Amino acid sequence: MIQTLLGQKDFIESLRGKSATFMLALSNTQTVNIEGITQAGIPGMIHLTPTLDSEFICTGEVRSLENIAETPKGVPTPALISRAVHLLNPYHHIELLNLGLEVTPKVAYFKQHTFELTPSASIATGANIDAEALFQKGVNFGQTYSCESDYLILGESVPSGTTTATATTLGLGYSEAKAYFSSSFKDVPNSIREETIASALKNIQNKKDLFEILGTVSDNMLIFNAGFILGLNNRLKVVLAGGTQMACVLLIINSILEYMGGKVESSNLAICTTKWVAEDKNSDIKALLEMLSFPVNAYYANFDFTLSNHPSLKLYDEGEAKEGVGAGGALMYGFLNDLNKEEITRKVEGFLG
Amino acid sequence: MIQTLLGQKDFIESLRGKSATFMLALSNTQTVNIEGITQAGIPGMIHLTPTLDSEFICTGEVRSLENIAETPKGVPTPALISRAVHLLNPYHHIELLNLGLEVTPKVAYFKQHTFELTPSASIATGANIDAEALFQKGVNFGQTYSCESDYLILGESVPSGTTTATATTLGLGYSEAKAYFSSSFKDVPNSIREETIASALKNIQNKKDLFEILGTVSDNMLIFNAGFILGLNNRLKVVLAGGTQMACVLLIINSILEYMGGKVESSNLAICTTKWVAEDKNSDIKALLEMLSFPVNAYYANFDFTLSNHPSLKLYDEGEAKEGVGAGGALMYGFLNDLNKEEITRKVEGFLG
Repeated sequence: MIQTLLGQKDFIESLRGKSATFMLALSNTQTVNIEGITQAGIPGMIHLTPTLDSEFICTGEVRSLENIAETPKGVPTPALISRAVHLLNPYHHIELLNLGLEVTPKVAYFKQHTFELTPSASIATGANIDAEALFQKGVNFGQTYSCESDYLILGESVPSGTTTATATTLGLGYSEAKAYFSSSFKDVPNSIREETIASALKNIQNKKDLFEILGTVSDNMLIFNAGFILGLNNRLKVVLAGGTQMACVLLIINSILEYMGGKVESSNLAICTTKWVAEDKNSDIKALLEMLSFPVNAYYANFDFTLSNHPSLKLYDEGEAKEGVGAGGALMYGFLNDLNKEEITRKVEGFLG
Repeated sequence: MIQTLLGQKDFIESLRGKSATFMLALSNTQTVNIEGITQAGIPGMIHLTPTLDSEFICTGEVRSLENIAETPKGVPTPALISRAVHLLNPYHHIELLNLGLEVTPKVAYFKQHTFELTPSASIATGANIDAEALFQKGVNFGQTYSCESDYLILGESVPSGTTTATATTLGLGYSEAKAYFSSSFKDVPNSIREETIASALKNIQNKKDLFEILGTVSDNMLIFNAGFILGLNNRLKVVLAGGTQMACVLLIINSILEYMGGKVESSNLAICTTKWVAEDKNSDIKALLEMLSFPVNAYYANFDFTLSNHPSLKLYDEGEAKEGVGAGGALMYGFLNDLNKEEITRKVEGFLG
């Protein structure tokens, strides 16, 4: 049920029956306001997506808006998958990382880590992030974070995050990566995304400082999490639950290590994504990870909606949505606790009525 | 599956997947010997009910008597529900609070907390409890109690406990509460209960000291648990698993705080009861809780026996039995761990042969 992309399955096997904290890194980037750049959410309300996703994961309710975030064609947020797994085999804890949101999630009794961050600006005009300070906040958090579970599943919800991740990776000089990035679009809107990325890259043409580059073309989630992982310093097993955005977090770490002449012990680090990302023809997560100078365990959860007839869910299998809100890691956690495809499918269908 | 009566569902949601200690507060009051006052048990043997309930919860066996406690019409104890949930998704620990029992439960390997307490006398003639000392024992226990689980579910088994709870609430001056109390009778035996309560209230006519009042009209479970909750001082998440008796525990706390001029932090406190109590036409748990001067999260487990054809279980849905032995909290715990109505129903039916 869990397929290995890189490294050994032993890492995953060692997590069977272990308790997990499901942590969701949330942020807004104004890149999302470029028309047509993403379909991850309700038109005009896409900035609310991470807020709604986290409310739904924690409580089963969407509080800052009436309906669950859906893309225009009606593909429901992958938060449904992560919540379904939680209902079937609860995560030990759910925690939120508020990395700059327009609207704070309305949940009580769940730990919300805050860092006095505001949404970043559009990368088309310059993200305007103090990347060094943000990275340092991540490092500090990693150094002091006390996990009450056996391991951490780190997911994200950042609308238009694949665009910022692509710009970041290219901006860091991984030029061969251009073709390796996915989007939440089926028909990858190459023109709008490419224009945006081209504008972003133009903004760093004369920049050489790594943090200056990151602060211009990246987003809060990517930069903070790179610091977070480095700050943890391998003392906790972490599964990055995501696709190309989480791969970008690792590439940022890679660049920072190179820039600073450091090394990272990565034996406790893994990434797990969905089958929809792993088999995506418009991106290549494995190739992205193979650019790293340190080893990383990489997996995908062999789950799809072939057992469902629900038209909204069939769209996943048609490539309309692929990953997000920790879905890949959530499915991994489900499989490690003996959930099967049928149970998860039925639970997700239950949300759709 | 879990409905909110007061407060937010977030409290309950934060308990998904968490480990729970199921603690049962047990006591006898000689009020039970007034003929017709309760049907919670076998006629002539009703004092054994808490002993048998706790033996059954822990071991699946009734050791101090041959048959499970049943009411005259054959309604089986709600211990069946709490035990069924334990078999399907075990509580992390089961612990017993012996708060004055005629017969000590015959169980080994389960923690039995004892406090050198004897059953209280009938409230018709005066309960004769040293309430201040008993309350203090509760406070001390709360201050020193070490819970090995993520949260505590606190249930009770006290035959004729709704009568003592009603007398206690009225004795404390919550006069509008008269209509808010349930009994385990369908056809509420107003005459016998009201006579008993009237006698109890006559006994405190000239009393003004809060503890003197409690010592005359209350029972050990109510007074001890009020101290226990205050002693815990919000350092542990606690779900009071019960109906109007647990509401009375909270009203005692409310009166003590008023009496002593103190405050309580109640964010980690909740009460969860059954649907049979929540929808009872002869009582109003929500109205009882709304008399508190501090906020409390309140829920009920949306469970009934509509999936069963067993005549004994149908009696629950007809109002013959409503709550007890932590059934409401047990069902909540079951639902938080993805048990469904069907599974629980079948397991309960399995006990009845």
